[in-house]
Amino acid sequence: MEPASVIAMPGLPGRVTVYEVGPRDGLQNESAVVPVAVKAEFVRRLVAAGLPAVELTSFVPPSWIPQLADAAELMDLLAADLAPGRRYPVLVPNARGLDRALAAGATEIAVFASATETFARRNLNRTVAESLDMFRPVVEASLAAGRNVRGYVSMCFGDPWEGAVPVDQVVGVALALAGMGCAEISLGDTIGVATPGQVARLLAALDARGLPVSRLAVHFHDTYGQALANTLVALQHEVTTVDASAGGLGGCPYAKSATGNLATEDLVWQLHGLGIETGVDLGALVATSVWMAGELGRPSPSRTVTALAS
Amino acid sequence: MEPASVIAMPGLPGRVTVYEVGPRDGLQNESAVVPVAVKAEFVRRLVAAGLPAVELTSFVPPSWIPQLADAAELMDLLAADLAPGRRYPVLVPNARGLDRALAAGATEIAVFASATETFARRNLNRTVAESLDMFRPVVEASLAAGRNVRGYVSMCFGDPWEGAVPVDQVVGVALALAGMGCAEISLGDTIGVATPGQVARLLAALDARGLPVSRLAVHFHDTYGQALANTLVALQHEVTTVDASAGGLGGCPYAKSATGNLATEDLVWQLHGLGIETGVDLGALVATSVWMAGELGRPSPSRTVTALAS
Repeated sequence: MEPASVIAMPGLPGRVTVYEVGPRDGLQNESAVVPVAVKAEFVRRLVAAGLPAVELTSFVPPSWIPQLADAAELMDLLAADLAPGRRYPVLVPNARGLDRALAAGATEIAVFASATETFARRNLNRTVAESLDMFRPVVEASLAAGRNVRGYVSMCFGDPWEGAVPVDQVVGVALALAGMGCAEISLGDTIGVATPGQVARLLAALDARGLPVSRLAVHFHDTYGQALANTLVALQHEVTTVDASAGGLGGCPYAKSATGNLATEDLVWQLHGLGIETGVDLGALVATSVWMAGELGRPSPSRTVTALAS
Repeated sequence: MEPASVIAMPGLPGRVTVYEVGPRDGLQNESAVVPVAVKAEFVRRLVAAGLPAVELTSFVPPSWIPQLADAAELMDLLAADLAPGRRYPVLVPNARGLDRALAAGATEIAVFASATETFARRNLNRTVAESLDMFRPVVEASLAAGRNVRGYVSMCFGDPWEGAVPVDQVVGVALALAGMGCAEISLGDTIGVATPGQVARLLAALDARGLPVSRLAVHFHDTYGQALANTLVALQHEVTTVDASAGGLGGCPYAKSATGNLATEDLVWQLHGLGIETGVDLGALVATSVWMAGELGRPSPSRTVTALAS
């Protein structure tokens, strides 16, 4: 269940943090509500497979995403099951969400900004500037409570309504999140349209503006099959945190054509083939995605899951 | 139907030859025989979409691959329809196949060698050395007839029976094919297991042994989702000919888990996003794959076809 040939490439990191978004970004796109016990078991299996960071859920208002209305209950079910020394962030949209997350015992917080006005309005019902104003006190309160914060920037490489997204716009949002104290900035290709030149350009622009690559993560969707090639470019720029979703679960309920996060298994196949350490047991991960596909009633779109499960 | 952002990356070629293998490598894996009129229409549509090289069929003995028993009839149907100034190779396994191909009017020939003994035995019922001995007079006769020859090396990065494949073994077969006069050598990841370090290593090894990259093509399968990342590495090494199959059709009837060539549409999305010229009309190509999926009765596995057809 591992690549037979392991050949390193010069200039790539020796270890990568695979940031698993399946339980949150993956499941939030499911129309039928997944039982909370299944979600808890999904997380337990991901943790057992060695994932070093698992985003657990989102404390959005239940009316926004009914699928995630069980966030507090899920945290409660998992309280005794999460291996120590790893990251278990939860997404919060606002101050009320942060209060709920902290009450539920969250140990790391994530906020989700948009690089484009149209998506900010559709996703958060605010302008980009208003959403950043909303996040600022949330980040401050999180830090005051001793919780690190991850800041997402969505629509970094294209927007279904606006088309191309100016790099300066993305850089501005990323710097704003970093400036308010987000420890890590995740650059999202929410609709999966990016190609490698865009990735290289954005990383260079952020570097030029003083945001070190050590604070960056990349978050690609595989809508056009580009996610893993774009990831490789990010690795070549020394990015060491890569978001992915077990089995390729996911998408975005507000964005047309945003089907399919990068599958964690396809990512891990590449990383292990390159001799890059992840701590992930690929066989256990594939078994988890096969089990989850059974729960959801449809096959995983991950190529590696398909190959190894057959 | 094209990437909204076009951003080049330093060091990549300005133009790439997309070598379309769908009609041969794609269809030979279909268990139900596709009517020859459908195959001819498939080729016509690919040509109309601007593909600069389309491998038409294979003159293998009909008993080996019944799907390709109509090779001569297909060539006859297409005789008046192939745009001039492009490449239309046909595969031949031996001298008898070459005779049939030349009689049918073939203008370029391809031969298909294996880097591993097990696959050579299963695919050609010969040792690697015996298969090269068989190809030598075929290549010589092709050249004598004024036809260029492409030489495939299959199982370059892994073999389902032998596992890892030593680089020297691949280099030896590639050099043998080049030495007998093959104008182009296509390096195949027949079971889709390769990761980027392997690709970089093989290309460096061939360069060190004097085989210039201008004579190389890469041929990746997407079994583990790695095809496009591996292609990017090949482009970074200045490879300018990339094999792909419209809609991701294909695989290999003799190799377990060899499902799925790199989809031409996913490749073209990347190339056009990078500002690399191909001459391909992506919209016309997607329409062709959607039509072909209808003929075959199942959806295309290409991410880009799925995204653009919806």
